[in-house]
Amino acid sequence: MPKIIIGVMGPGESATQLDLSHAYELGQAIATQGWVLLTGGRNVGVMDAACRGAKSGGGLTIGILPTNHSNGISAAVDIPILTDLGNARNNINVLSSQVVIACGMGAGTASEVALTLKAHKPVILLNSTEVSHTFFKQLSPTLVFDAINVTIAIQLTRQLLNER
Amino acid sequence: MPKIIIGVMGPGESATQLDLSHAYELGQAIATQGWVLLTGGRNVGVMDAACRGAKSGGGLTIGILPTNHSNGISAAVDIPILTDLGNARNNINVLSSQVVIACGMGAGTASEVALTLKAHKPVILLNSTEVSHTFFKQLSPTLVFDAINVTIAIQLTRQLLNER
Amino acid sequence: MPKIIIGVMGPGESATQLDLSHAYELGQAIATQGWVLLTGGRNVGVMDAACRGAKSGGGLTIGILPTNHSNGISAAVDIPILTDLGNARNNINVLSSQVVIACGMGAGTASEVALTLKAHKPVILLNSTEVSHTFFKQLSPTLVFDAINVTIAIQLTRQLLNER
Amino acid sequence: MPKIIIGVMGPGESATQLDLSHAYELGQAIATQGWVLLTGGRNVGVMDAACRGAKSGGGLTIGILPTNHSNGISAAVDIPILTDLGNARNNINVLSSQVVIACGMGAGTASEVALTLKAHKPVILLNSTEVSHTFFKQLSPTLVFDAINVTIAIQLTRQLLNER
Repeated sequence: MPKIIIGVMGPGESATQLDLSHAYELGQAIATQGWVLLTGGRNVGVMDAACRGAKSGGGLTIGILPTNHSNGISAAVDIPILTDLGNARNNINVLSSQVVIACGMGAGTASEVALTLKAHKPVILLNSTEVSHTFFKQLSPTLVFDAINVTIAIQLTRQLLNER
Repeated sequence: MPKIIIGVMGPGESATQLDLSHAYELGQAIATQGWVLLTGGRNVGVMDAACRGAKSGGGLTIGILPTNHSNGISAAVDIPILTDLGNARNNINVLSSQVVIACGMGAGTASEVALTLKAHKPVILLNSTEVSHTFFKQLSPTLVFDAINVTIAIQLTRQLLNER
Repeated sequence: MPKIIIGVMGPGESATQLDLSHAYELGQAIATQGWVLLTGGRNVGVMDAACRGAKSGGGLTIGILPTNHSNGISAAVDIPILTDLGNARNNINVLSSQVVIACGMGAGTASEVALTLKAHKPVILLNSTEVSHTFFKQLSPTLVFDAINVTIAIQLTRQLLNER
Repeated sequence: MPKIIIGVMGPGESATQLDLSHAYELGQAIATQGWVLLTGGRNVGVMDAACRGAKSGGGLTIGILPTNHSNGISAAVDIPILTDLGNARNNINVLSSQVVIACGMGAGTASEVALTLKAHKPVILLNSTEVSHTFFKQLSPTLVFDAINVTIAIQLTRQLLNER
């Protein structure tokens, strides 16, 4: 039986303090639910914070790395998948997650949200500007969800998992 | 000496009539400039229209296909590159283009614009809603350009090529 | 701390009975060692047998799938990574494994052995013909190891992990 | 109408003098036939020599690069496709070529021959050891062809194109 995998995407070097604290909380909450966390796996930003949160909650963490070597991997990643695909690996992130949560926004995260919608999968936006939300809602009205905090994001995730 | 390659990205099945006529004109103008056209290569939407335009102008057309077979390829593609990568091929589209022009908007196109910005490359938006423009400008203020018609898009492209 | 990931590669539909029984044993032994098993994740051949063996030993199993959907995944895969990359995913299999064991031989497996050597990583051949062994030894004399049974393959794996 | 694309694969840094002279001749002959040449695009070994040969014959050359930047590209590549996929791009090389010719042998080339067979496509071996030929013939008896020189390789290619 495959485990339930939840993807948390978000900025790396340009993450805000709020992105990071939300990502940590998200990781922790995902672990508490018994779900597996999947991120881009690097040792910066939302990826790293979410993984550290998940480990603090006793969870299992998967990192889908853009590189082919062990430099720059978050120390909180249990299962590093070395793709050597650069940003083409973003599509793997979203295809392998049952639900995708975008925590914060940047160019890489935007590509992941768009690829999630392209794959006809739901995405939850946390810490998103109003224009981000409006933009993605226009692309795909029924698949974009807005969460005002981590608790809501987790509730939405549970709901989306039930509806599959 | 490598040829100059200009990428035209845009919706497939969901392209509007205006997207299609702009794409055809873009392809034609790109061929007239002596540039090579690169698209996603499928036989629908902006990809197909741009390729047909380029061929009408005597140009060379490259299609970066998501599949591994010859079904669904635009008849106006000279060089079909069969990636079998699904939407992960979107990253190849933008990395291989010196300038990317997004004609219309959809989930796939949004991923390509975002991946262009992630690669620190300029992108020209044509036929874009105001919210699209605002969204991408927020992500990368200096790399997003707005064109109100094909003539302006080509002028901007020429300028961006000179600045490289 | 990342877990130790051991890749088992081998034929799908064309696997022999000996390939399958060795793959099952390999999976079991990998689990017993406390290592994580990585395979191509499909519900046939060596991939499936190795995963079932690992689950029988209480192990954790990762499947790097060529598709973007849940059809055709081995029921014994815990963590399905949906790449949608077709056979380009073979490179991820070998980059993400600390040691690669090829159990049996076929065109896909041969590509994985070759990509392992291209990445300057060791590979252990089990159930291999003499010509396979000679061919790969010629490509990379110091990185190709021959195992006559599962016990030897596991001993070699342990040795290679120590030398890293 | 898509052009006919012939792939020439072979070692980079480790190519022999014979590999290089054969690759140059192959490129020239492919151009003379009016076919497009596709290689891995780097500025070394068989890739570079074949592209230079094709340009000397007035041909068109495509390079499928493993990187995302312009360093290390053969100056004889007309159309550089920047994949940023590392060796996962090897699968694109073979899928996009109607016929694949392997000129010389190494780990990367072996992966390309194997991926060609995995895609059920024919491959012509030039400058290959007997063990290479035997190995690949065992994998796929009907798809592996041996050429003792460039003239034979081109004749076989023409025949394989007719049979498609």
